[in-house]
Amino acid sequence: MISFASDNYASVHPKIMQALVDANHGHVPAYGNDEITQKAIKLIQQTLSEKAKVWFVGTGTAANTLAIKASLRSYQSVICTDSAHIQCNETGAPEQWCGVKLLTCPHEQGKLTPEAIRKVYNAEACWGQHATKPRLVSISQTTEFGTVYYPEELSAIRAVCDELDLLLHMDGCRLYNAAAELNVPLEELVKDIDVLSLGGTKAGLMFGEAVVFLNPELAQGFEHLQKQGLQLFSKMRYVSAQFLALFTDNLGLDLAAHSNQLATSLADSLQRFDGVELLYPAESNMFFARLPQLWVETLQAHTYFYIMPGSDIARFVLSHDVQQSHVDDFVEKAKQLG
Amino acid sequence: MISFASDNYASVHPKIMQALVDANHGHVPAYGNDEITQKAIKLIQQTLSEKAKVWFVGTGTAANTLAIKASLRSYQSVICTDSAHIQCNETGAPEQWCGVKLLTCPHEQGKLTPEAIRKVYNAEACWGQHATKPRLVSISQTTEFGTVYYPEELSAIRAVCDELDLLLHMDGCRLYNAAAELNVPLEELVKDIDVLSLGGTKAGLMFGEAVVFLNPELAQGFEHLQKQGLQLFSKMRYVSAQFLALFTDNLGLDLAAHSNQLATSLADSLQRFDGVELLYPAESNMFFARLPQLWVETLQAHTYFYIMPGSDIARFVLSHDVQQSHVDDFVEKAKQLG
Amino acid sequence: MISFASDNYASVHPKIMQALVDANHGHVPAYGNDEITQKAIKLIQQTLSEKAKVWFVGTGTAANTLAIKASLRSYQSVICTDSAHIQCNETGAPEQWCGVKLLTCPHEQGKLTPEAIRKVYNAEACWGQHATKPRLVSISQTTEFGTVYYPEELSAIRAVCDELDLLLHMDGCRLYNAAAELNVPLEELVKDIDVLSLGGTKAGLMFGEAVVFLNPELAQGFEHLQKQGLQLFSKMRYVSAQFLALFTDNLGLDLAAHSNQLATSLADSLQRFDGVELLYPAESNMFFARLPQLWVETLQAHTYFYIMPGSDIARFVLSHDVQQSHVDDFVEKAKQLG
Amino acid sequence: MISFASDNYASVHPKIMQALVDANHGHVPAYGNDEITQKAIKLIQQTLSEKAKVWFVGTGTAANTLAIKASLRSYQSVICTDSAHIQCNETGAPEQWCGVKLLTCPHEQGKLTPEAIRKVYNAEACWGQHATKPRLVSISQTTEFGTVYYPEELSAIRAVCDELDLLLHMDGCRLYNAAAELNVPLEELVKDIDVLSLGGTKAGLMFGEAVVFLNPELAQGFEHLQKQGLQLFSKMRYVSAQFLALFTDNLGLDLAAHSNQLATSLADSLQRFDGVELLYPAESNMFFARLPQLWVETLQAHTYFYIMPGSDIARFVLSHDVQQSHVDDFVEKAKQLG
Repeated sequence: MISFASDNYASVHPKIMQALVDANHGHVPAYGNDEITQKAIKLIQQTLSEKAKVWFVGTGTAANTLAIKASLRSYQSVICTDSAHIQCNETGAPEQWCGVKLLTCPHEQGKLTPEAIRKVYNAEACWGQHATKPRLVSISQTTEFGTVYYPEELSAIRAVCDELDLLLHMDGCRLYNAAAELNVPLEELVKDIDVLSLGGTKAGLMFGEAVVFLNPELAQGFEHLQKQGLQLFSKMRYVSAQFLALFTDNLGLDLAAHSNQLATSLADSLQRFDGVELLYPAESNMFFARLPQLWVETLQAHTYFYIMPGSDIARFVLSHDVQQSHVDDFVEKAKQLG
Repeated sequence: MISFASDNYASVHPKIMQALVDANHGHVPAYGNDEITQKAIKLIQQTLSEKAKVWFVGTGTAANTLAIKASLRSYQSVICTDSAHIQCNETGAPEQWCGVKLLTCPHEQGKLTPEAIRKVYNAEACWGQHATKPRLVSISQTTEFGTVYYPEELSAIRAVCDELDLLLHMDGCRLYNAAAELNVPLEELVKDIDVLSLGGTKAGLMFGEAVVFLNPELAQGFEHLQKQGLQLFSKMRYVSAQFLALFTDNLGLDLAAHSNQLATSLADSLQRFDGVELLYPAESNMFFARLPQLWVETLQAHTYFYIMPGSDIARFVLSHDVQQSHVDDFVEKAKQLG
Repeated sequence: MISFASDNYASVHPKIMQALVDANHGHVPAYGNDEITQKAIKLIQQTLSEKAKVWFVGTGTAANTLAIKASLRSYQSVICTDSAHIQCNETGAPEQWCGVKLLTCPHEQGKLTPEAIRKVYNAEACWGQHATKPRLVSISQTTEFGTVYYPEELSAIRAVCDELDLLLHMDGCRLYNAAAELNVPLEELVKDIDVLSLGGTKAGLMFGEAVVFLNPELAQGFEHLQKQGLQLFSKMRYVSAQFLALFTDNLGLDLAAHSNQLATSLADSLQRFDGVELLYPAESNMFFARLPQLWVETLQAHTYFYIMPGSDIARFVLSHDVQQSHVDDFVEKAKQLG
Repeated sequence: MISFASDNYASVHPKIMQALVDANHGHVPAYGNDEITQKAIKLIQQTLSEKAKVWFVGTGTAANTLAIKASLRSYQSVICTDSAHIQCNETGAPEQWCGVKLLTCPHEQGKLTPEAIRKVYNAEACWGQHATKPRLVSISQTTEFGTVYYPEELSAIRAVCDELDLLLHMDGCRLYNAAAELNVPLEELVKDIDVLSLGGTKAGLMFGEAVVFLNPELAQGFEHLQKQGLQLFSKMRYVSAQFLALFTDNLGLDLAAHSNQLATSLADSLQRFDGVELLYPAESNMFFARLPQLWVETLQAHTYFYIMPGSDIARFVLSHDVQQSHVDDFVEKAKQLG
């Protein structure tokens, strides 16, 4: 069975599964003191930044939360959009584990703008000690609406961060899709970032994300935070082996390019139908659309996709294990309904 | 010197100061195990609700934070306006100490409405385990813009709380002003409330607020929270003596009525001038206005008032120790400018 | 390569790996809303208690921390030994995530006694609001020193918990080893427990532990805590499939029996040598011994084992993938040294 | 009525009360932006250290907790004795508000020793990322048993802190008593300290303590922590006025000398009786003794003192408002019993 529901419904890519099988021989030191982990970290450093500090964790929420925790003191705050995953879908983990406040503003096609950052900053900072001290900007690449920040947009955000003495965090759970869409190396996409939540699970792993400190000063003591933060997997080789495979021969980027292409194809086909409206540009492996009300049930039965809670908006996510034929079949079904 | 800046600029009312002097004889048990504390608690219970549990704390932020902490588990959340004191001016204390998320919505003249509560609730609850569980509504009486909730508005909010299984918290740092304005007993104003932050300092005390559990089940273990929450004053009699005086012969209500009357008088006079615009109805001892730009400096020099940070809006707060003559002089000065 | 260092050095058992491979077909709902997860939960319930609530998490520290967080309010505290994993080796996670205090006492062969619980309880509770409220007893089965609580010891601890209104938590990261040693069903071992950290990784999984609420009232809202607690694996089927395999045909117990037998064999052989001293009875797959100083380096080079930090005590852990021949070879090597 | 129960039973010293009355004129800026606060801070700086940063808070638990919070990251820990106030009598506030672990060791006459610090440090640090990072030593001057650290003991503790890269905190709720006993200036007593909880209430104030950063780098952002930490008193002048009076003409030291002298006198007299045993040297205004069982009730009825919870140990605390005649009467009563 295949779906357009979520990259979390998807299977583990065969090369990742093979890496797990291959890693399963004999005893190796626990907690990351093994060769596979060291190799995986080195390969990620070579791909993103030689000076980066890399730590593996279990979930995207964990990566985001610990990235924030490492960066901030309790009285500091995060600037993000009102659609950010950390704001909407992490059950208050940043507030609970970091104790910090999230300062939100309306998104523009899923994105933060320098103007919005400056406005939120000023509205908080003008209160002095009676309010928090804004210290971290968090953006998602790709965004929660499947759009991407272009390199010049990232540069502009970095500039306002520098101006206001703010750190910059990127939730990169679908970073590979952005890189594939923009056709720029991962290194280029993260060069302005202080700390990155590097995706794994949505990219085809069984489980595993990484916290990558491009700004290595923020990583001080993180070995303790990894354990305290409930993320020190004792048999770490099985997380590392997956990342090693994902970064070998650009597997992550290839899978993302494949998924992006399918999503663009599906979005293109769907928006030609009367009554279908795309909400944002289809720039990654995920897009949102309004469909004719009468189509929804039939199409979901054919190939399942989400209707966003409390709305009539359909979300389509194309995973690494979806094929063009699945898209074609779905479009054919829609044609029958049209 | 007198000002219209803040009830926190004001002095301690002479009757309160006398109560402190009177309490200052010999040794009494510490931590609230003294007769004055027991008397003060009993008088507050008689005034608000016989079954209430009453605890004294140091600051308004402490009262709000511990009221929330006692009411919620870490995965639950608070619904409030985007102008709530807990959201804007407590340096993230609820997030830091309680770990909970604040879910905000635009205020209407400083107030929450049942519709807004329902909307915020649904937008969060529809995500199930991926979002927090809304559990507490927090309102301010009087509001941060000096308006008051009318009894029928409170009833309507209670109804939606009951419908959605939500608790109701009131930030009552200026509760006396609301009661004086509405001419209803305090008891009436808090009958629908589960937990109340009962003001003291702004009402004329030197320091001291109270957390009052109208819903006594929420108070379980609060004696530990009071100490853990940094609020167990060892020489408690000096907090209690102030509250005892404030509730004796309705001193708090009388002072509030006096302040309200002055504020109404000042607002009435000011809004008659060309170029003066009141932002919200003047319903308590505080109101907000736009003044002709050229007046501000001169009038502030005459009797100081705030310009809200990052805005051109003037805030006037009339305290218990302001007299009608101060208002008259100020209006006279404005006349000279007009 | 094989070692006696840690069950975290060990590989994933072939049946577990096969279960992962078998689960890797097509799309299934994320976050545990899949059939494998439902089957795994049902099988664990059938094995431990029909009324249990079961949640999968990533690490043992996560299981312990979230079990505590679900059970306690901030002002409550945990009674455990000074050798408990939650006290010594979780980087302060319980304090950081739950905010609670751990009240410790010296262990007796790794164990808590009813007398020690009562003593710690009284020393804290006598301070009333000036100290925390003891509310949870935490024990490890098997203990951090490889000993086991006998059923009558568990009953006696339960009795003192009932007497003092305390909840009972069991850190069961090696629960299977205790059951195998005692030759009692798992159900019997946890019948007096309110909340259990059920081991997985040390038992032969790749990763994954479970929080099992035998007292289902404590599980209220845990679906939110699982996500907020950074433990909601999106591709949950791959955690569940491992547990399903571990509980099918008692695989976990069989592997534990094998490991226990090897450990007993090794301990028996070693303690016959002059200069070798066992610190505690060898009752599981782990035991501690003092060895002749001159042996250590040579024996570690032969088959690696830990010397406990800051001590001269050797720890031997026998994993599911160790064979009798490894033990025999090691003993033979020791003979040569002797 | 007078007691030997606690310096928290005591009244406010007349000079302090007068300072409060004197401060009660007209409006002044809130939140510490007033002249009295600036004068008080300056006087404390002149007395303790010109470069110190000084912040007023409400309670001793607040001072200790915020001093720790300002100094540590979540994965760091505190070394203190098992009798420290932060460990025993603050209801777990450091764990709850700072999330940090307290590492304790047995006290020696209430004190930490360099050897104990080193031992605790090594036992934790040897575990690397699996345990917390010890970062702060906390000592109480005077200790919880009424003894004092001598200057050479403080120097030795500072040396081990420097060696192990540890910060040094002093809980100085009775600092004046130590200075009076040792006959050294306050400045001398705190010269090796990074952050000090400076007592007020026990010294004769109505309420109020201070967090004093002798190491000003630790104070960064503390203006936010003061508010977030529930300690920003809006009418701050009434806290500051008390400290201004306490530090004017060495009032605090004079009152401490008086109390110490009475305590020494009482201890000397009592220990001459058969069956009375002093537990520790009487070096401040507080001492502990075992009394003949039959005396306790009669003597408590004469002048109340504490029996420590769960023990037969009497605690005597002599406050600023106790006179020699009270001591003489009490000794006379004891004579009658003897």
